[in-house]
Amino acid sequence: MRVFRLLKRDEGSLGRLGQVVTTRGVIDTPAFMPVGTQGSVKALDPRELREMGTQVILGNTYHLYIRPGLEIIRGAGDLHGFINWPEPILTDSGGFQVFSLAKIRKIKAHGVEFRSHLDGSLLFLGPKEAMEIQRALGSDIAMVFDDCPPHTATVKEVRGAVERTLRWAKECREQPRAVGQQVFGIVQGGKHAELREECARALVGMRFDGYAIGGVSVGEPESEMMLAVEHTVPFLPEDQPRYAMGLGTPAQLVELVARGVDMFDCVLPTRVARNGTAFTAKGTVSIKGGFNKADYRPIEEGCECFACRQFSRAYLRHLLNVNEILGLRMVSVHNSYMYLRLMADIRAHIAAGTFTAFRKEFVANYVPSRRVLQTRGITAVRGVDE
Amino acid sequence: MRVFRLLKRDEGSLGRLGQVVTTRGVIDTPAFMPVGTQGSVKALDPRELREMGTQVILGNTYHLYIRPGLEIIRGAGDLHGFINWPEPILTDSGGFQVFSLAKIRKIKAHGVEFRSHLDGSLLFLGPKEAMEIQRALGSDIAMVFDDCPPHTATVKEVRGAVERTLRWAKECREQPRAVGQQVFGIVQGGKHAELREECARALVGMRFDGYAIGGVSVGEPESEMMLAVEHTVPFLPEDQPRYAMGLGTPAQLVELVARGVDMFDCVLPTRVARNGTAFTAKGTVSIKGGFNKADYRPIEEGCECFACRQFSRAYLRHLLNVNEILGLRMVSVHNSYMYLRLMADIRAHIAAGTFTAFRKEFVANYVPSRRVLQTRGITAVRGVDE
Repeated sequence: MRVFRLLKRDEGSLGRLGQVVTTRGVIDTPAFMPVGTQGSVKALDPRELREMGTQVILGNTYHLYIRPGLEIIRGAGDLHGFINWPEPILTDSGGFQVFSLAKIRKIKAHGVEFRSHLDGSLLFLGPKEAMEIQRALGSDIAMVFDDCPPHTATVKEVRGAVERTLRWAKECREQPRAVGQQVFGIVQGGKHAELREECARALVGMRFDGYAIGGVSVGEPESEMMLAVEHTVPFLPEDQPRYAMGLGTPAQLVELVARGVDMFDCVLPTRVARNGTAFTAKGTVSIKGGFNKADYRPIEEGCECFACRQFSRAYLRHLLNVNEILGLRMVSVHNSYMYLRLMADIRAHIAAGTFTAFRKEFVANYVPSRRVLQTRGITAVRGVDE
Repeated sequence: MRVFRLLKRDEGSLGRLGQVVTTRGVIDTPAFMPVGTQGSVKALDPRELREMGTQVILGNTYHLYIRPGLEIIRGAGDLHGFINWPEPILTDSGGFQVFSLAKIRKIKAHGVEFRSHLDGSLLFLGPKEAMEIQRALGSDIAMVFDDCPPHTATVKEVRGAVERTLRWAKECREQPRAVGQQVFGIVQGGKHAELREECARALVGMRFDGYAIGGVSVGEPESEMMLAVEHTVPFLPEDQPRYAMGLGTPAQLVELVARGVDMFDCVLPTRVARNGTAFTAKGTVSIKGGFNKADYRPIEEGCECFACRQFSRAYLRHLLNVNEILGLRMVSVHNSYMYLRLMADIRAHIAAGTFTAFRKEFVANYVPSRRVLQTRGITAVRGVDE
């Protein structure tokens, strides 16, 4: 099956318009995938996700394996049945989580021995296990089990991670899959151009259904994140989807699309919502802020999301201040909608041939957060913390 | 304006079928009113409330006066505008909260001086203030400011509370109202039949639009709650609505309807949902319970609520166990629906002349919670804690 339809190349950038075709539905790209780590996109229900145009959500192998465990999910058929989301699901392999969340780990030839972050029980995840779990989850797109080193890793450590990632990718490639399940390879290599190229070329040789850029969103400065993508994309096939894992802010997504990325996932929209921070086309805004006390406008004027059509900043600020769940629910709705809508706008602009102008204007208007500015070496602060 | 339509009297009990008519819509009685203390029915949005058949919600004078404060609500027109609920709202007067939540209070002739439970600031609420706030909130039904003594009060204290409640009710009666706003009196008198009668007769003499039975849901045993209602209802007019404040469990509601009550509000459906406890026709069930681990049935078979149509107990248990907000959201949806549906069933049975049989069967099948059984002096336990 041809899993990617490349519909149009942007003339002013590496941006592309396309479709990832799965047995459970088509995903228009560039695409944003809301993150449902534990089988739920935080605070949202499936109807809300559908209403905001979600075509695919993420699930996480590591988390779902620990709780509720495979037997419980198998009892409902698969993850789609368990969480009542018959549309496409992409599952992360658990590699990132084993290397970032788990304690006391021992890296072995065929995987990682680690203790659950939950109860300390000894567990093992490797390419074989990760693919078996993803097969049981029945995800439409499974990710290979990779070694994701931290941003602070030495070049030697990153080289080791690339070698292990490639060995494990090959093992993943050989595992049985769920019916219709696609498998994406993950390119590691940190900030090292030659390692990115080496890893990408080797993975492409193994012929996966798509390719992800991993080892980003691990604390690196924005410039290194962009470089990681720039060092990888040239070595990925034009006719297959490219997925940048765990990124980013709205302005970063626009820039990453311009660098040839088709798919994104990010916890920011729902995570910062729980602190009362909303994304807008002009940057983030703290809804709790005193300046919203008597502001009866919606979070973002002109926004068509469920929250903006119904509620004012003043009301949402009140709800957040008195810890009413509806407050964080509605900011989660707005933020997720904002990301999905941004992707729809990007697609429309690539289709119309106006992406370059859109990109320029969007990035110019978007005030980055303090955290992003700091990674640019800027400490004078206009942005709001996420 | 005639505010109550008495459509039918049940032949086997004091139950009635009716309608409370407000300028913002009709409330079919017996009615359950979801509680939105701080301007939000906890965890639910207005669409969900509408879908489950909500015709009126509660707001609270005390809480909304403290946060966000009247100015902010006035800026949106009124409470309906602020929270985007154009349908009927009943507001409690704050009397109950002043006597139960506030600290260091001093009861004066025209109200109560107290310190905010939030920041300790000195505040004053009396009949004049409570009615002025409710006028600004623009509620369709306002409650008089009453003195609600605890269950442990002496007969002398209860008598004092009745006298104060009557004096304040008269003051409330004289205050200006919002356009179309009805005002209900509140009968106090604790477990003392003669005080209940005295209070009811005096209030009826003042000619309110409806009458509430207060001083219940203050920790009294179930038998005393029933007696408080039985000692009050005979002295209330047939052609006006009767409202039992803050009650109760589903089986108690059925019994209270049989004793002539038309309106109810209760925080139980949403409060226990946040602990993962669901109401069913057979009593409460802890969704977190291990017995639900691999139970792929809905919370309650045959239930048509948004949660039961979509999700299994196994999934909801998982969500509650990993603290996903969707879990408590969906149990809140189910529980609120269950209460509203129970009222719809009661109305249908009164209309069909089958309420007596329904009452008998419902109460026989409903396993009371431990807490309720304890108030009956029963400690052997079948029920589940709320």
